[in-house]
Amino acid sequence: MEQTSSKSLQKLIGLRREHKGLINLMPLQTGGVLTEAARQVLTEFGDGYSVCDFCQGSLCNVANPPIREFVQELLPQFLGCEVATITHGAREAKFMVMHSLARPGDTVIVDGNRHYTTVVAAERVGLNIVAVPNSGHPEFAVDVNQYTALIRQHVPKLILLTYPDGNYGNLPDARRLGEIAQEYNIPYILNGAYAVGRMPISMGDMKADFIIGSGHKSMASAGPAGVLGMRKKWEEIVLRKSAKYKNKDIELLGCTIRGVPLMTLMASFSFVIERVQHWDEQVSKAQWFSAELEKLGFLQLGEKPHRHDLLHFDAPALYEISQRVREKGYFLYKELKERGIWGPQPGLARSFKLSTFAADRQQLEYVIDSFKAILSKYG
Amino acid sequence: MEQTSSKSLQKLIGLRREHKGLINLMPLQTGGVLTEAARQVLTEFGDGYSVCDFCQGSLCNVANPPIREFVQELLPQFLGCEVATITHGAREAKFMVMHSLARPGDTVIVDGNRHYTTVVAAERVGLNIVAVPNSGHPEFAVDVNQYTALIRQHVPKLILLTYPDGNYGNLPDARRLGEIAQEYNIPYILNGAYAVGRMPISMGDMKADFIIGSGHKSMASAGPAGVLGMRKKWEEIVLRKSAKYKNKDIELLGCTIRGVPLMTLMASFSFVIERVQHWDEQVSKAQWFSAELEKLGFLQLGEKPHRHDLLHFDAPALYEISQRVREKGYFLYKELKERGIWGPQPGLARSFKLSTFAADRQQLEYVIDSFKAILSKYG
Repeated sequence: MEQTSSKSLQKLIGLRREHKGLINLMPLQTGGVLTEAARQVLTEFGDGYSVCDFCQGSLCNVANPPIREFVQELLPQFLGCEVATITHGAREAKFMVMHSLARPGDTVIVDGNRHYTTVVAAERVGLNIVAVPNSGHPEFAVDVNQYTALIRQHVPKLILLTYPDGNYGNLPDARRLGEIAQEYNIPYILNGAYAVGRMPISMGDMKADFIIGSGHKSMASAGPAGVLGMRKKWEEIVLRKSAKYKNKDIELLGCTIRGVPLMTLMASFSFVIERVQHWDEQVSKAQWFSAELEKLGFLQLGEKPHRHDLLHFDAPALYEISQRVREKGYFLYKELKERGIWGPQPGLARSFKLSTFAADRQQLEYVIDSFKAILSKYG
Repeated sequence: MEQTSSKSLQKLIGLRREHKGLINLMPLQTGGVLTEAARQVLTEFGDGYSVCDFCQGSLCNVANPPIREFVQELLPQFLGCEVATITHGAREAKFMVMHSLARPGDTVIVDGNRHYTTVVAAERVGLNIVAVPNSGHPEFAVDVNQYTALIRQHVPKLILLTYPDGNYGNLPDARRLGEIAQEYNIPYILNGAYAVGRMPISMGDMKADFIIGSGHKSMASAGPAGVLGMRKKWEEIVLRKSAKYKNKDIELLGCTIRGVPLMTLMASFSFVIERVQHWDEQVSKAQWFSAELEKLGFLQLGEKPHRHDLLHFDAPALYEISQRVREKGYFLYKELKERGIWGPQPGLARSFKLSTFAADRQQLEYVIDSFKAILSKYG
């Protein structure tokens, strides 16, 4: 490494996060802010393979720390499923299920609002992807009844619904799709990366076959971390064991999150169980915030009244400003950051996404006032 | 979750690691002990998706923190390869390469000392696995020349070598296998999970097509984290992009270690570059320690003189004790733990594995004295 400049290496030491301590409205991040308990296990289990001190061959079977109890008892109860496991994240869980239940050339039907990783996971397996379109601007709603005709036409091996989607925070009728899935006997994946850990949700109530959650997105966990719940009938297929190593899951390659993210997921879990009970307060907070921003001339996209903290706004007034300032679209990021607020993707002003999940009403009042001040400054 | 006992949940809070602070000889763990710099980023980037503040669509392209520079400039130089990426770990890297280059029914030839995850990754792809046997007790050496006949016989899509293996710490002739791979034009994976970050190693010098490293095993990183280096010619195959999302890698499902383990890998990197320069000291320390334990009647398995810190001993005297004490094989773990030493897998006494990588000579002298004291106590 003689040619490596010491300057490049030096940069890697003492890295600081610019946005730490700001009011966080970033949709990817508001559900992943650690609890104090999770913060404490970071250093306790930070060293490499330190969760594996008492491994007997399988991560999900480790008794100390109590991973086995977490995965085999607490998680299934929380997810409303029969069998659960842990994954590197929601995308890896989707791939694992698709790779187990479908073969190259098979078809999966997904909602038009699906995350990009749903498409990439299906591509990695070699699947044909058929999408149920959304209703377009401004609601972008998915009518799950439209799955029926596509199921008849394409005879898919799997169907998937994103609940809610990450673009608009829409909550389609997941239970109705469960009825359709049962009628046609098609395995049904519910991607709840923005639901599990934020709001009450039960795989069983939705009549789904699989439920997927994200630790870093919605369960107050460090990344990468995810959870996968399923009906018992899929266990021997998705969690099939190696022919040679009888206690090793093939789709997990033995073990997945063998490190500190799992410990943060576990440390935050009792807090997460508690917080989903207060989801109604989150919804009313999001609705109030959305109404206040609409008074400023922004247009909330997605379902109304909104039932999730993920909000997407069209902002013609901000776009107009971005066309005549030196920073272009970055002016919004800069103005908000100067006010201690972090949320909209840097560079975007025409439309932007926010999540009200991690901020309290007082902070959101300040955010609303800040938008007012920015509009007035450039008005 | 009404049925969940609060006791189960309470256990998840304030989890402590029993072995923290002990002299660590656990082979899985000695190369993954964090540096002080890595420990500091744990809290800085602990919150969920906090490495993604300035994401423009791809983790390996993030400029702040300087992930792009780390992955695209520093890592290839360190690994002696042309193109590098980051993975969840060594097993996920093996799967990624196998899944890209081979199809179900194809054959991969591996060494008889391969990690179990090599087999499970191949099973996940649906490959036939052919193994070059080791020489058996006590050396368990792999002669890479034996790949030749098997290549002729099975016409594999890939060959893989574990360098060193995790059971005996043997270092087979990886460069010779590179020559064979080139002669027969078979892509060659070098699994360096216990090499990369501990000892100097260069993919190019070994004439390999791929090199794999493990962050949590050997790069002073939190788990899960891994690295994958390759020749430029494989980039468009292994790092092929989604047809729909042009900046998303299919095999990475977009992004892999999107969280704090990556930051620890980066924070420790300059330290890791430095420490591999002192590998000769590690080797002489391991050889001295091995010779001292052999004086106590233990038999070191694997190559002699040994060229790695992973050591495996047959211990007939300890086995004899385990047959007549109440704790059975656990007596060794208990006796060592009482003396502040953590290493052999709890329950094992007949033979055990240790790594001298993280302990200094003074600590190892104390370990040797402790073994003496244990033998004498039960003698």
